Amino acid sequence: MERLFLLLEKNYEEMVAIRRYLHERPELSFEEVHTPAYIANFYRELGLEVREGVGKRGVVATLRGGKPGKTVGLRADFDALAIQELNDIPYKSKNDGVMHACGHDGHTATLLILARCLTEMREELAGNIVFIHQHAEELAPGGAKAMIEDGCLEGVDVIFGTHLWAPTPLGTVLVREGAIMAAADRFEIVIQGKGGHGAEPHHAIDAVVTGAQFVTQLQTLISRRVNPLNPAVISVGHFEAINPFNVIADTVKLAGTVRTFEEEVREQIIEELELLLKSVCLGAGATYTYNYYRGYPPVVNHPQETAFVAEIARDIPEVDHVKTCEPFMIGEDFAYYMEHVPGTFFFTGAKDPCWETAYPHHHARFNFDERAMLIAAKTLGNATLQFLQKNR
Amino acid sequence: MERLFLLLEKNYEEMVAIRRYLHERPELSFEEVHTPAYIANFYRELGLEVREGVGKRGVVATLRGGKPGKTVGLRADFDALAIQELNDIPYKSKNDGVMHACGHDGHTATLLILARCLTEMREELAGNIVFIHQHAEELAPGGAKAMIEDGCLEGVDVIFGTHLWAPTPLGTVLVREGAIMAAADRFEIVIQGKGGHGAEPHHAIDAVVTGAQFVTQLQTLISRRVNPLNPAVISVGHFEAINPFNVIADTVKLAGTVRTFEEEVREQIIEELELLLKSVCLGAGATYTYNYYRGYPPVVNHPQETAFVAEIARDIPEVDHVKTCEPFMIGEDFAYYMEHVPGTFFFTGAKDPCWETAYPHHHARFNFDERAMLIAAKTLGNATLQFLQKNR
Amino acid sequence: MERLFLLLEKNYEEMVAIRRYLHERPELSFEEVHTPAYIANFYRELGLEVREGVGKRGVVATLRGGKPGKTVGLRADFDALAIQELNDIPYKSKNDGVMHACGHDGHTATLLILARCLTEMREELAGNIVFIHQHAEELAPGGAKAMIEDGCLEGVDVIFGTHLWAPTPLGTVLVREGAIMAAADRFEIVIQGKGGHGAEPHHAIDAVVTGAQFVTQLQTLISRRVNPLNPAVISVGHFEAINPFNVIADTVKLAGTVRTFEEEVREQIIEELELLLKSVCLGAGATYTYNYYRGYPPVVNHPQETAFVAEIARDIPEVDHVKTCEPFMIGEDFAYYMEHVPGTFFFTGAKDPCWETAYPHHHARFNFDERAMLIAAKTLGNATLQFLQKNR
Amino acid sequence: MERLFLLLEKNYEEMVAIRRYLHERPELSFEEVHTPAYIANFYRELGLEVREGVGKRGVVATLRGGKPGKTVGLRADFDALAIQELNDIPYKSKNDGVMHACGHDGHTATLLILARCLTEMREELAGNIVFIHQHAEELAPGGAKAMIEDGCLEGVDVIFGTHLWAPTPLGTVLVREGAIMAAADRFEIVIQGKGGHGAEPHHAIDAVVTGAQFVTQLQTLISRRVNPLNPAVISVGHFEAINPFNVIADTVKLAGTVRTFEEEVREQIIEELELLLKSVCLGAGATYTYNYYRGYPPVVNHPQETAFVAEIARDIPEVDHVKTCEPFMIGEDFAYYMEHVPGTFFFTGAKDPCWETAYPHHHARFNFDERAMLIAAKTLGNATLQFLQKNR
Repeated sequence: MERLFLLLEKNYEEMVAIRRYLHERPELSFEEVHTPAYIANFYRELGLEVREGVGKRGVVATLRGGKPGKTVGLRADFDALAIQELNDIPYKSKNDGVMHACGHDGHTATLLILARCLTEMREELAGNIVFIHQHAEELAPGGAKAMIEDGCLEGVDVIFGTHLWAPTPLGTVLVREGAIMAAADRFEIVIQGKGGHGAEPHHAIDAVVTGAQFVTQLQTLISRRVNPLNPAVISVGHFEAINPFNVIADTVKLAGTVRTFEEEVREQIIEELELLLKSVCLGAGATYTYNYYRGYPPVVNHPQETAFVAEIARDIPEVDHVKTCEPFMIGEDFAYYMEHVPGTFFFTGAKDPCWETAYPHHHARFNFDERAMLIAAKTLGNATLQFLQKNR
Repeated sequence: MERLFLLLEKNYEEMVAIRRYLHERPELSFEEVHTPAYIANFYRELGLEVREGVGKRGVVATLRGGKPGKTVGLRADFDALAIQELNDIPYKSKNDGVMHACGHDGHTATLLILARCLTEMREELAGNIVFIHQHAEELAPGGAKAMIEDGCLEGVDVIFGTHLWAPTPLGTVLVREGAIMAAADRFEIVIQGKGGHGAEPHHAIDAVVTGAQFVTQLQTLISRRVNPLNPAVISVGHFEAINPFNVIADTVKLAGTVRTFEEEVREQIIEELELLLKSVCLGAGATYTYNYYRGYPPVVNHPQETAFVAEIARDIPEVDHVKTCEPFMIGEDFAYYMEHVPGTFFFTGAKDPCWETAYPHHHARFNFDERAMLIAAKTLGNATLQFLQKNR
Repeated sequence: MERLFLLLEKNYEEMVAIRRYLHERPELSFEEVHTPAYIANFYRELGLEVREGVGKRGVVATLRGGKPGKTVGLRADFDALAIQELNDIPYKSKNDGVMHACGHDGHTATLLILARCLTEMREELAGNIVFIHQHAEELAPGGAKAMIEDGCLEGVDVIFGTHLWAPTPLGTVLVREGAIMAAADRFEIVIQGKGGHGAEPHHAIDAVVTGAQFVTQLQTLISRRVNPLNPAVISVGHFEAINPFNVIADTVKLAGTVRTFEEEVREQIIEELELLLKSVCLGAGATYTYNYYRGYPPVVNHPQETAFVAEIARDIPEVDHVKTCEPFMIGEDFAYYMEHVPGTFFFTGAKDPCWETAYPHHHARFNFDERAMLIAAKTLGNATLQFLQKNR
Repeated sequence: MERLFLLLEKNYEEMVAIRRYLHERPELSFEEVHTPAYIANFYRELGLEVREGVGKRGVVATLRGGKPGKTVGLRADFDALAIQELNDIPYKSKNDGVMHACGHDGHTATLLILARCLTEMREELAGNIVFIHQHAEELAPGGAKAMIEDGCLEGVDVIFGTHLWAPTPLGTVLVREGAIMAAADRFEIVIQGKGGHGAEPHHAIDAVVTGAQFVTQLQTLISRRVNPLNPAVISVGHFEAINPFNVIADTVKLAGTVRTFEEEVREQIIEELELLLKSVCLGAGATYTYNYYRGYPPVVNHPQETAFVAEIARDIPEVDHVKTCEPFMIGEDFAYYMEHVPGTFFFTGAKDPCWETAYPHHHARFNFDERAMLIAAKTLGNATLQFLQKNR
């Protein structure tokens, strides 16, 4: 532990340099070319086994320790967003309309430097480490699933991952056993009534009234049908019936999102949402189409690995607080890894103490305190060492 | 009567010619230039007093009979619609995107020829006739109000008007005591909630849910608040919340129409519609703007004049049926004239017996059986003669 | 006419006496014994043909005129209500808890005295008159249907009837072509959810929420589905879910009424009400029972007979006003007669000019101005004479 | 630890005997006389300081250890329920209509025997123990509040309590940091419309429709207004509008329950529930009364004490599993103690392994596996000893 921490501290400046290099060169999900090439090259220079194009664009490097043992997977994502950066910083994005506005540049730099340090400690390692650099986290269906299908988890016994998190102060680490991030799904509905003259409702089937009834009824799915102890949200963001004022709407189009933490609740909502839609349309004489698009499943942390990492984090000198957080209602395809191997995903606070509030993730002025990378590297690194040690 | 009918029949061919001439040269509401000039010129050639630019674009001609008596007003509207004609006829509209798709060309031709025939009978007339050619019936605020304010009803004791009506068979005349056409109003509403992330309803005020509740509640205004014996309709044709699926809507825009036959019911709806809107927004924590645009008032036929014209119509040889119709939920600014003088407005069936169904008014293929003009002229003309005769 | 009026005036005092005699001896619907015996005896004393027990409890007497001609039916109902009279009058009801609180005593006295007068004029009558004294108007299924099935309309060419109407001033007669009284129906609904603990909605099916949604949706049946020109009302008066506060309701019971003027609208409502119920239950996972009880059909006056009686009424010296009334949303089984023969039903104003307002019908203090009976008798009688005269 | 366990095991038979003695002699909440007398006598025989009538009916005994130190509070409730026992057991309730159907007899026996064993270990105790025997847990406002006001927590540094829990298998202990039991509140609402005839909605204010709209709108309070991560339930169990079918309801009465785990959410619901009620009534023209009755606050376990007791429980030989449970949506006035001192409340599984399922608490056939009392005593006892040891 001591040695790893010292190595990481020594390499911190380069970690920052890599992060800024990547920040200047963001690439969109499923369009990553230079980033994976850069990563692969880094590992080749370290002398590790590297596999490129994993699941199309991912990079996987393997470090084999000097002694036999288990295998730990560590994951960092590396794609960016279609946002025009508004920060006035020396390392501002050079790609117009593309920005690392979620910290994946930091994730990558953290993991690369951690890999270098662990490689230096290779001889004393009792097992192996797989460095999983994932493309396309931001855009469903995401890169994780394809990388897993392409074998990135082969031989892996446990997986750890983190997100640098700007809303949380530097020095705080957030953990949570069980569901920590939600399934984030999308649905699209068309209600087909029968248009008509605004003065003659009896000759029409009013799609606006039918849509309004559906939205009103839908509230009971949350308030009455779902177990109140299982958080769930249904939001209809889009309601479209663009018509002259004196017409009865023929059609309305609705779109919305469903957030859940339990697969069972998700399935219940998928089914009962359609049942309500069907019933409202039956009463009105309307018809409908219903399309439901599953996003990533919920990120469900395994209890033992979560308690383990929480303990590790408490021992990092720069960590003031390890807190159990409320689950976040956003999605992450880290979920897929934990469907295959035990593991945990945690949030590393990255709000600069000088900022009153941080810009939210995905904001054009988003940034994070780079010292969080060091905390993340120490936590992931020490968790890896301790895990291999304990499981010899 | 006999003489008038003979004169009209003799002039029928020219009536058709005038109608077709006008049909080729339609002009939009409040943009009429050539049509009023043509009308004024026609009256000048007849040697009648003519006033142009009445209420801006209307034309009023006065025929003074040989004997003293009452004064009858006869009204025809002359504006056209922003529709591209799709009929394949020799007299198709020559003005791109403008069409006489409601029969006002026919109304004008009917009144002009009737004026010529009555002028020939001038000596035996016991009173006067005012020919009111009105612009801009199709577009609120309409031409009637301005023409009245500009004196077109001065000295007028009674007014008659008709609409050639393509859905009703030639030979049928529709009358109705009391309300025959509705007040047709418009409203526009903006509900201002507070936008947010689709996963965080508690930080937002969901404008889509609020709008849906409003539309749902609104139904009770008709079902529970308005006297069930007073027909009324509220239709929300437009419901606009165009957003990404994973957002909670900040704002919705609604627009709709209200149709009533009684001023009291209209006022009740204007007031209670806002009360419901206010109450739903109060419950949701939203705010709103509400704009209500009164269209024409209901067309309310005076009982005595209606019974009188019904009797007259029964004696026209070409009329097979005089029927009491249900009121129409559309609007007409003829309503304003009858707020000042007694009168009646009736529908002259104009469906060619060869057509299975007629294209509706305002349709790009709309047309009517021109023989209906002769029936209209005979009814209006004989009503005028009999009225003056009876009220010497 | 002159002679009939004189005869009626001469008999007016006895008319009053008979009315008061009957008022003291009210009998409930389907329990009438003494009243029909009294009526039958009256006709026997006049020397007319009498049939008792018609449709179980009705009485039908026939007067054959001295000359051949058509046959006129005149109807009066004679049942009373389960109300304890609170009037302090010399002729107060002697039957505890039973009261002539709707004026059927007056109807009967009117028709009996009219029959006596017309009998005196027998020789000059060009046709026949059938006096139909009907039991059980107040209680569905009513007496009219059974009496018709038992032949009371045999040979009848036209039928007239009236209701003494206390809310309308003496001297006013109310007529209306077409629907003048509504179909007044009843429905009963049970929604069966699944009870549960108030803290566990996901294990229950909340019958209160389902019932509330049904009532809310139901409003659209009036506001959107029914032709706005056809008045219709649906009221749910009864909503029963009696439970401890911390329970989720297993069941709700609803009951209500439907009022319509058109058979088509009635059938539409019967059908679509169930469709809405079915759809709401489908969405909630609940089940239901639905029972619809048709009351009397709407009373639909025939146009020609209505215009005829209006004309007759205008010539009665005591009649100041003959008005076209709005339809009443209450029911009357006179409706059945006019499904078989042409006729009309009108209201004879019976509010004493000294009263500020009259007690409503069915009130324990209900009464009417007895002079209305004379007006009713003159109108019915003269209508009969004129009809026979015109249709010789 | 070893010694305490041996002592408890030696006294187990008497623990059972006391429990059965109490089971035969149940007393209703706020009517307890013999039970507190029995308890007080027990402590007097042990030679401890006893205070009776604490908060009216509670008993508090204090054991002062041989060495100085902290003070631990241990609480057991002793009231019974108005249920007629249906168990066929030798120690069946002798009080008609009253039954220990929630296990408070067991709680009391557990604490009494534990007190005796700890008293034997008095010399080695580094601190004091306060035995809190509470009346009236089952009936709001409960006994806890009054006992606290009467000083039962004076000098107490930490408090522990448990519930024997029949639905959970013997050998399992359920713990939970934070909210473990809900605030369980009640509300009563009257909506005052304006009654009327079922055929005349426009003269009435329909309380049934208004109530239905309120219930429908209420769903959004859970689905849109409350933080989805904070479980909350609103159930309207009672909806009363008992009227004839043809009437429009004047009034509806509603009653329901609210369950929350966070004071903030509770306050939000109390406020917004009224806002929705107010808004719906505003729209309808109705008025309302609203009464909200707070039950016990949520039981919120302190994190450190919870982790501590979980650790203790894991070391009890008879405990197979210590599990983090989902919160229960029922209430407990143990909540009040933890508003004043840190502590934790846990559930001791008490389902006999021979039973397929246990009868639920408050059932007339409720019973529990008495061996659970030994587990409870060992957990509470060892927690006390360890706490005093650690905090010397």
